[in-house]
Amino acid sequence: MFAIIPAGGVGSRLWPLSRSAAPKFLLDLTGDGRSMVRATVERLAPVSAGGVVVTGVAHAPAVTGHLAGTGVEVIAEPSPRDSMAAIGLAAAVLHERHGDVVVGSFAADHVIRDEAAFHAAVRAAEEIAAAGWLTTIGTSPTEPSSAFGYIEQGQALPAPLAGRLVVRFEEKPDAARAAAYLGSGRHLWNAGMFVVRTGVLLDALAELHPALHDGLRALGRAWDTPGRADALAATWPRLDRMVIDRALAEPLSLRGGVAVVPADMGWSDIGDFDAVAALAPSPPAVTVGADGAWVRATRPVAVVGIPGAVVVETPDAILVTTRAASQDVKAVVDRLTGPLEGLR
Amino acid sequence: MFAIIPAGGVGSRLWPLSRSAAPKFLLDLTGDGRSMVRATVERLAPVSAGGVVVTGVAHAPAVTGHLAGTGVEVIAEPSPRDSMAAIGLAAAVLHERHGDVVVGSFAADHVIRDEAAFHAAVRAAEEIAAAGWLTTIGTSPTEPSSAFGYIEQGQALPAPLAGRLVVRFEEKPDAARAAAYLGSGRHLWNAGMFVVRTGVLLDALAELHPALHDGLRALGRAWDTPGRADALAATWPRLDRMVIDRALAEPLSLRGGVAVVPADMGWSDIGDFDAVAALAPSPPAVTVGADGAWVRATRPVAVVGIPGAVVVETPDAILVTTRAASQDVKAVVDRLTGPLEGLR
Repeated sequence: MFAIIPAGGVGSRLWPLSRSAAPKFLLDLTGDGRSMVRATVERLAPVSAGGVVVTGVAHAPAVTGHLAGTGVEVIAEPSPRDSMAAIGLAAAVLHERHGDVVVGSFAADHVIRDEAAFHAAVRAAEEIAAAGWLTTIGTSPTEPSSAFGYIEQGQALPAPLAGRLVVRFEEKPDAARAAAYLGSGRHLWNAGMFVVRTGVLLDALAELHPALHDGLRALGRAWDTPGRADALAATWPRLDRMVIDRALAEPLSLRGGVAVVPADMGWSDIGDFDAVAALAPSPPAVTVGADGAWVRATRPVAVVGIPGAVVVETPDAILVTTRAASQDVKAVVDRLTGPLEGLR
Repeated sequence: MFAIIPAGGVGSRLWPLSRSAAPKFLLDLTGDGRSMVRATVERLAPVSAGGVVVTGVAHAPAVTGHLAGTGVEVIAEPSPRDSMAAIGLAAAVLHERHGDVVVGSFAADHVIRDEAAFHAAVRAAEEIAAAGWLTTIGTSPTEPSSAFGYIEQGQALPAPLAGRLVVRFEEKPDAARAAAYLGSGRHLWNAGMFVVRTGVLLDALAELHPALHDGLRALGRAWDTPGRADALAATWPRLDRMVIDRALAEPLSLRGGVAVVPADMGWSDIGDFDAVAALAPSPPAVTVGADGAWVRATRPVAVVGIPGAVVVETPDAILVTTRAASQDVKAVVDRLTGPLEGLR
């Protein structure tokens, strides 16, 4: 399998740690000494024959620096065209180079604590993908979250394939549905992982999104030639913006073309400070009536009377919220205007 | 009237602004460019013939600096002996110098927004004090606070004296009693102001606390002589520690010896961040679901999902609390041990 790692998205719910110039995938959120994109690449190394990170042109130098010594290739997108174009470009390039091979796409800014379980799931997904399915990896819900997409599992695939057909995908259900899914045993969180043969992916694109397909194939053919820059300039700005879930996974699931491998692997999208607090230690804070407070600061912090408080200090800003409100941090970034615009 | 201003007490509910080395009376909490002790001295100037600030020996140089040009005398206590000894020492010194004159004691770290009302109340209290009463100034409650002492007013003094007898003092009533007092029309907040003739004060001390009286008189006699230092060394450490409310005001009130002048003068003891927030502007903060947030910081602060949040940044610490919890900040200081002890 070749790994494809789209690295986009600022992660604005993690402001002030995340910035347009320092997006989430370049941060070391867990405190393990590595950026998330490097941790992702290192996690995939045992189960991949090589990797491609697709990122914005502005971040390509930083990503290249973070990945020094890994041998992973960095593809710079001239402008953001969303995940379908990013993954499709890498798939088209790999298809030209290696033929109809299995690729797996994985977000650059998620956390997986049980790497052995992850590796086993990837190997199972690779077998299913080789047999022709677009294969995702889903993880059992641990809370009735409305922040994630859900996958409903159907019948088992024929042995020895260790997965099930996907009945359907559902984006961010309301609280009542999320609660029902939590106990159903049939619903998994969509962890944003897709394993598929390049031929399957490109054929499905040709059928469902022919203009995008043609553009990506043209770029794939030109990529390793002197014509790359011209092809990018001519083609990239005209590609449709779609996410892979909507563009491929949902339509293919309607005709039995998508499979899922369930894997309890300690996955987290570490999407807000509640998730960060669950994973990363807090330096000691002086707390009075503030159980569960989580702090990231360079100076001593005291919290009084705010259970689950979150305090984040950077050299140029301070954020104060609670673990329960941490999804709303995104709204702060929208309000950084005028003299505060430099903090975005 | 001679003004006596005891300046003691760190104000630890205002940590991290207040420190043992930077007590509340040396801070500019309202942002008007003056420390509280200087604002107090300047507020008293129009109604006093001179003033004495009594403070700890460690703070005497700073207080002297803050009061440059005011002509106010600074008396340094060798060690803290509480308000009765501090006020009594100043009264004994002034009695030696000027005879049986009216003195008024006022805390060094309170705020009064309506100075005209305050001056009128002081002048009324001075007349009553000249007639022999220990006279306090009380302010109408504006909320059912359990954080203040209360004064119950009784019958009016004979005209033309503009005050009433004090029936009794009550320290920090519970919430139900405080709520009842709010609407009674008979209860006032004890603003910690006492106006009295030095002779009345010293005679009452001689009767109720003879050892303390004798020590203070001895110090008063020695003060303006070469024997001051010897007298302080011999006498000060053996003085009883008492607060003036308990030592004089309460016992004298039982026999009709205490009067009160009601005055609505915008008084605040500015004792916690809730009170500071009511008086001092907050620099703009980015708030999402955090109405009433109050901030004192040198960098931009964002608050998400914590109505009434209080965020205070100093070069060496950050405090996060709410206006409702701000009384509990005091407990933080008790927990500043080990490597954090320097933050006290």
